[in-house]
Amino acid sequence: MSYGLLKGKKGIIFGALNSQSIAWKVAEKCHEEGAEFILSNAPIAMRMGELNELAEKTGSEVIGADATSMEDLEKLFDAAIAKFGKLDFILHSIGMSVNVRKGKHYTQMNYEWLKTGWDISAVSFHKVMRVAWDKECMNDWGSILALTYIAAQRTFPDYNDMSDNKSYLESIARTFGYYWGEKSKVRVNTISQSPTNTTAGSGVKGFGGFFGYANDMSPLGNATADECADYCVMMFSDLTRKVTMQNLFHDGGFSSTGVSQKVMDIYEEMSK
Amino acid sequence: MSYGLLKGKKGIIFGALNSQSIAWKVAEKCHEEGAEFILSNAPIAMRMGELNELAEKTGSEVIGADATSMEDLEKLFDAAIAKFGKLDFILHSIGMSVNVRKGKHYTQMNYEWLKTGWDISAVSFHKVMRVAWDKECMNDWGSILALTYIAAQRTFPDYNDMSDNKSYLESIARTFGYYWGEKSKVRVNTISQSPTNTTAGSGVKGFGGFFGYANDMSPLGNATADECADYCVMMFSDLTRKVTMQNLFHDGGFSSTGVSQKVMDIYEEMSK
Amino acid sequence: MSYGLLKGKKGIIFGALNSQSIAWKVAEKCHEEGAEFILSNAPIAMRMGELNELAEKTGSEVIGADATSMEDLEKLFDAAIAKFGKLDFILHSIGMSVNVRKGKHYTQMNYEWLKTGWDISAVSFHKVMRVAWDKECMNDWGSILALTYIAAQRTFPDYNDMSDNKSYLESIARTFGYYWGEKSKVRVNTISQSPTNTTAGSGVKGFGGFFGYANDMSPLGNATADECADYCVMMFSDLTRKVTMQNLFHDGGFSSTGVSQKVMDIYEEMSK
Amino acid sequence: MSYGLLKGKKGIIFGALNSQSIAWKVAEKCHEEGAEFILSNAPIAMRMGELNELAEKTGSEVIGADATSMEDLEKLFDAAIAKFGKLDFILHSIGMSVNVRKGKHYTQMNYEWLKTGWDISAVSFHKVMRVAWDKECMNDWGSILALTYIAAQRTFPDYNDMSDNKSYLESIARTFGYYWGEKSKVRVNTISQSPTNTTAGSGVKGFGGFFGYANDMSPLGNATADECADYCVMMFSDLTRKVTMQNLFHDGGFSSTGVSQKVMDIYEEMSK
Repeated sequence: MSYGLLKGKKGIIFGALNSQSIAWKVAEKCHEEGAEFILSNAPIAMRMGELNELAEKTGSEVIGADATSMEDLEKLFDAAIAKFGKLDFILHSIGMSVNVRKGKHYTQMNYEWLKTGWDISAVSFHKVMRVAWDKECMNDWGSILALTYIAAQRTFPDYNDMSDNKSYLESIARTFGYYWGEKSKVRVNTISQSPTNTTAGSGVKGFGGFFGYANDMSPLGNATADECADYCVMMFSDLTRKVTMQNLFHDGGFSSTGVSQKVMDIYEEMSK
Repeated sequence: MSYGLLKGKKGIIFGALNSQSIAWKVAEKCHEEGAEFILSNAPIAMRMGELNELAEKTGSEVIGADATSMEDLEKLFDAAIAKFGKLDFILHSIGMSVNVRKGKHYTQMNYEWLKTGWDISAVSFHKVMRVAWDKECMNDWGSILALTYIAAQRTFPDYNDMSDNKSYLESIARTFGYYWGEKSKVRVNTISQSPTNTTAGSGVKGFGGFFGYANDMSPLGNATADECADYCVMMFSDLTRKVTMQNLFHDGGFSSTGVSQKVMDIYEEMSK
Repeated sequence: MSYGLLKGKKGIIFGALNSQSIAWKVAEKCHEEGAEFILSNAPIAMRMGELNELAEKTGSEVIGADATSMEDLEKLFDAAIAKFGKLDFILHSIGMSVNVRKGKHYTQMNYEWLKTGWDISAVSFHKVMRVAWDKECMNDWGSILALTYIAAQRTFPDYNDMSDNKSYLESIARTFGYYWGEKSKVRVNTISQSPTNTTAGSGVKGFGGFFGYANDMSPLGNATADECADYCVMMFSDLTRKVTMQNLFHDGGFSSTGVSQKVMDIYEEMSK
Repeated sequence: MSYGLLKGKKGIIFGALNSQSIAWKVAEKCHEEGAEFILSNAPIAMRMGELNELAEKTGSEVIGADATSMEDLEKLFDAAIAKFGKLDFILHSIGMSVNVRKGKHYTQMNYEWLKTGWDISAVSFHKVMRVAWDKECMNDWGSILALTYIAAQRTFPDYNDMSDNKSYLESIARTFGYYWGEKSKVRVNTISQSPTNTTAGSGVKGFGGFFGYANDMSPLGNATADECADYCVMMFSDLTRKVTMQNLFHDGGFSSTGVSQKVMDIYEEMSK
């Protein structure tokens, strides 16, 4: 079902890797809702991905960019401006922790890897917005979104330095969002999504068990990648113009549930 | 502009008084987006209001109900069920403090009036949901919304016992929202709106000055009643199905701004 | 071990029922730290309690008062003023839900009982502060505390209308705290305590299982009543003068833990 | 006035520069309360500072360490262990942004400087805890504190990348705090302090005006460095053992005040 919510809107979508990716679903929905966009991902991710398939399906162009490189980002935005003039939306769905990948315990992290993960997962959001800022390429009432996770507020074992990266990312959204609002009526928000069965998500140790736990803790169950894409469309549409500098939980109620009856039942059964 | 976001959806909208009311704007937008609904307000409010005009414009029926009376609410929901079968959305835009109206200072409140204000502004939300619950009249993936204000989190002089009522209201949304989610996949949220120039809002002492202050503190400026209606439509649509038990700030960034440059400039000018 | 932290300080402690009560422990610690105080509880609670034993042990006087009755509270404060002149601290440890006691489900509550529980558990805090305000009996830099629970922020099955009452109570602390600060340099805070094995706590359905769950979720384990008393002493002392309008989690880390390894282990074991 | 709250406790205090510094005040109060400690600061800061004066006054030793250098930190902790055996408390009062110092606007930051500021202001807290962790030198029920600012939650113009650094720092407190709690009953918290007239604080552009604004917004006025030291003592004492993974506002009520009457009065005067 489509409504034409993004008719005439132009944007850039970062982070689609394969058909499991949230960014992939966002691209599909944005296309259905009438948007045009450029797909971007890191050159290395693109080699593994099937991004061309998505590009074809959505009539969009693929431009590789390392989101930690100002040079790459400038080329990408120049191409976007050449194509679209100005932009209405940006999705940042980028995150990676070397310490998580290598199975380092939080107390034993490698600090070089920490810096790399911070740069990729958090600072890249600043860089993306900064290039857009310098090139003055956002239309008034544009919308910029990044994806995040509740580990920024509460500790989850094995989520590791991604917790701290997501806190930094959410802070960038607030701080840069202030300036965007004052200058160009552009809004900046983060969506704090349920654990999602993507390539990135399922790379976290113990993901399977945790996915089930979160599902049982959430009165509406975990939000899927498809549902997250719906929410992103809404945040890109003209119906949410005054929402800015917010972290929006899209999680079936997980964040506001102290404990669910389901989890208590399992827990009590176990303690017998 | 309309998208057909609420095509086929049925609901009840509480609290439209006149064309300044947020609920009035919500009704107009819901109609434009394809919804059918019943308009309800307290009998006493309806005598003063111009609700029939809105009913005519939106092809909806008006049914008076005192939202603190279970009997009135049951009649209203019976009529809604007779008309629509099941419901997809409910808006609760009801609030009144006798202590505020009579200019009582927060430290000197009348406790009988406190109870009345609490019952009207907060408990009524429980009663509305309870009648819907008992009559099992919500469709799966239905959406229930109430309007609130950031005074539930931070103190604003003269907002008085409405601060505490809004805290209670938001808590009801979380607590009842848990059960709705578990039982029927229904979501319950509150929207925390900028100060709005409605009959209710402007009744608060010092509203004018405060409206300007909030506007200068918000990077995107205060959200209007029209924009709030857009956000309500989004929350009633199928694109936000997994958002529940949340308090959503719709305030141009006010809630995440420690201080704006505009306010600092005025403040520093003054302190010279 | 005692430090003399409250030497010369005078206060009123509400809500000691028996030696399990948090307020009982607070009274013992305040006495050890050099404070003098009056003990108060509802006449009906006092009949069941062993308050005289505590009074003797701590050299304090017992004055019964229904904390929902302005008349009772005025008598109590008059007696306190006659005895102490001015006051330095007040503890509000009062809470009761008829709906919880009678086992009513949150969706099926009796609204008369709701009002009674709200009045006892939340409004009483306003009334206590209002009598102190009107009688101008707080010393500068005095400290007022109420006990609360994280159900005010997140839903816990069976905690019922106490969730909403605690939200209202915490809001009173902020709103009244603003005026106390401006007027008399008095601070007002709430302590959000771990589930505690008191007569009140253990009356909540499923308390046993939940106590264990919370303990396993908290990196430092649940906070005990004794530890809570230590924290109250700290908040009454002169070392916390600029902390006000805060809700302070005293919970072994529960509030900031998304899930603990212990709970995940039990959960995964169970799901096999 | 002193209570002997820290009798027998040993620790390390990072970040005392001169007698304006919060860490300086903390050292004085800890000494008065019976603690022994090592003072540490960056070699470059020590050259400018008067740390030896403080060392003499408090009978403590000064050991320079660049808190971003694992090597320096290891030497420091080895010396501390040689001297004290095990430790009971650590204060991290370290923060510096090159972008702030050089007057770079948030949208125009230098990314090398960003990394430097992040490493000094935030990652150093991880490194300090990590060395303590690896050397297993914290006593059970030890207490680790870092100082932070509300810019981690809300935007303040000119606070710049320190906002994001403080968010990351607070996240480290939660994440590492989880492991400390599980392993050794050690608690980790951050204190979010009012703007304070220290060398670091007053280096932020527009500090003077903002200090006054915050003071007028806080019902109890801004918290001073001395008062912050009192609060730190409390958090190091045995009276707060179950408080962990919290961000504690020590700000005279600023964080819970939407707007104060004082600020509204000034603002309204100005708008006439």
